[in-house]
Amino acid sequence: MAPIINRRELTIAWGDCDPAGIVFNPRFFEFFDASTWMWFDAALGVKPHELNAAYGLIGIPLVDARANFLKAVKFGDTVEIATRVTKFGRSSFEIEHRLSVGGELHIEGHETRVWAAKDPTDPDKIKGIAIPPDVLAKFG
Amino acid sequence: MAPIINRRELTIAWGDCDPAGIVFNPRFFEFFDASTWMWFDAALGVKPHELNAAYGLIGIPLVDARANFLKAVKFGDTVEIATRVTKFGRSSFEIEHRLSVGGELHIEGHETRVWAAKDPTDPDKIKGIAIPPDVLAKFG
Amino acid sequence: MAPIINRRELTIAWGDCDPAGIVFNPRFFEFFDASTWMWFDAALGVKPHELNAAYGLIGIPLVDARANFLKAVKFGDTVEIATRVTKFGRSSFEIEHRLSVGGELHIEGHETRVWAAKDPTDPDKIKGIAIPPDVLAKFG
Amino acid sequence: MAPIINRRELTIAWGDCDPAGIVFNPRFFEFFDASTWMWFDAALGVKPHELNAAYGLIGIPLVDARANFLKAVKFGDTVEIATRVTKFGRSSFEIEHRLSVGGELHIEGHETRVWAAKDPTDPDKIKGIAIPPDVLAKFG
Repeated sequence: MAPIINRRELTIAWGDCDPAGIVFNPRFFEFFDASTWMWFDAALGVKPHELNAAYGLIGIPLVDARANFLKAVKFGDTVEIATRVTKFGRSSFEIEHRLSVGGELHIEGHETRVWAAKDPTDPDKIKGIAIPPDVLAKFG
Repeated sequence: MAPIINRRELTIAWGDCDPAGIVFNPRFFEFFDASTWMWFDAALGVKPHELNAAYGLIGIPLVDARANFLKAVKFGDTVEIATRVTKFGRSSFEIEHRLSVGGELHIEGHETRVWAAKDPTDPDKIKGIAIPPDVLAKFG
Repeated sequence: MAPIINRRELTIAWGDCDPAGIVFNPRFFEFFDASTWMWFDAALGVKPHELNAAYGLIGIPLVDARANFLKAVKFGDTVEIATRVTKFGRSSFEIEHRLSVGGELHIEGHETRVWAAKDPTDPDKIKGIAIPPDVLAKFG
Repeated sequence: MAPIINRRELTIAWGDCDPAGIVFNPRFFEFFDASTWMWFDAALGVKPHELNAAYGLIGIPLVDARANFLKAVKFGDTVEIATRVTKFGRSSFEIEHRLSVGGELHIEGHETRVWAAKDPTDPDKIKGIAIPPDVLAKFG
């Protein structure tokens, strides 16, 4: 089964950039976060804000994140972000983001995240739970 | 020589947090970015915005970044971020950030950055240059 | 009774600034948001993240916001933000923020906000409720 | 001549929202900032990042900003932002932003901005300059 890839395009805004005229690095982690949520829409047909109602999902907090910045991304650049889940564990999953400008890879990001719900023993806390079987089934 | 460590304390604001009530992850990379700039002030006695005038520094863009998120950080938490440079290369350097809440490590971050100046052959571009000897000397 | 003013100082970070080297304007509304939460701590002695437990407060959403930008604020500037509540209505209140650099007013902000709780008829919604008497009493 | 209106659609992301599950207010000012830049593309056919090369424009800093928040905007909402310049002065201009969800106005924003260039007497400063005649001509 071909992997499900979410591709989206965005144009770098003035407010994404720092005094050197390039994207302020935390913005890339914002872009990646939104792309991860969108991947679930592409894979499951469930909108990000409906994952809670559908699965009791309260969030997908990070366990770890890495990014390699190969080339600078600048104000006005049109970027494509291609996102796919590379692995599902019991309650965690790994995501890869490839950000390109003009077809050339500029930044590569990797995240490990947890499928999290409210802790039944303490509703103020959130904890990783088993990823639902139908989510795993869509992954193939 | 003991390593120079920049320590700072901040309180997690409402606007740092996401709908799960924990810090939205790109904020940590913002915190780390500011801490890296502050390290230079602690190490060199030069304010971040004066590094350009003092050294022709135009920015310190990332080559790579990694973070491990060990425990969730929440609205109202008082966090301490301890930052040190762990290595200086010719034009790049490595930074470690340890973010703790109540003395307990919650997030560990690692960055590799470039000491960047305007490219003399093209002022619209920036490029890594040799880190100045007196900066290296302060590192020990 | 003298008005309760929350004063705080912060230094403009690299990541607060845009390619023109001045603060990207939404940052000021972030600064004002944090200052409004801090005012309640100064006035009530209740930490922002404990207002929910103390009063059932779920948030303080804006009704309107205005700001006058008198002078540019730049990377490295040390700013003071002085915040006070200028009026309490039944469920809304008005806040004034005066942001100065070197004692000189640079930006003046005004907000009207609502004291909001979960809507008892629909827990997915939030609605303005009467501001608690002891909050009003502290205002004088 | 019919006014030039820039319309764009965006979906509210997880990271745009606060612990109450609604958009953190500074995000709206970010949205408005990007929409103002896009208006120039719609009106002049010049991409935002090319305005500098075309007109020597170094930025469009705010003089003042106001917003009325009529209804809450939530995670997953699809919003339309309709932006138009309502007035051009000699070196300043006024912009109106109407943000709707499902065709219903939720937020109305107004900005006054300056057409700014590097100060010829001090390249570290920026100052308002006369708006170019061909920009005014497109406005009608």
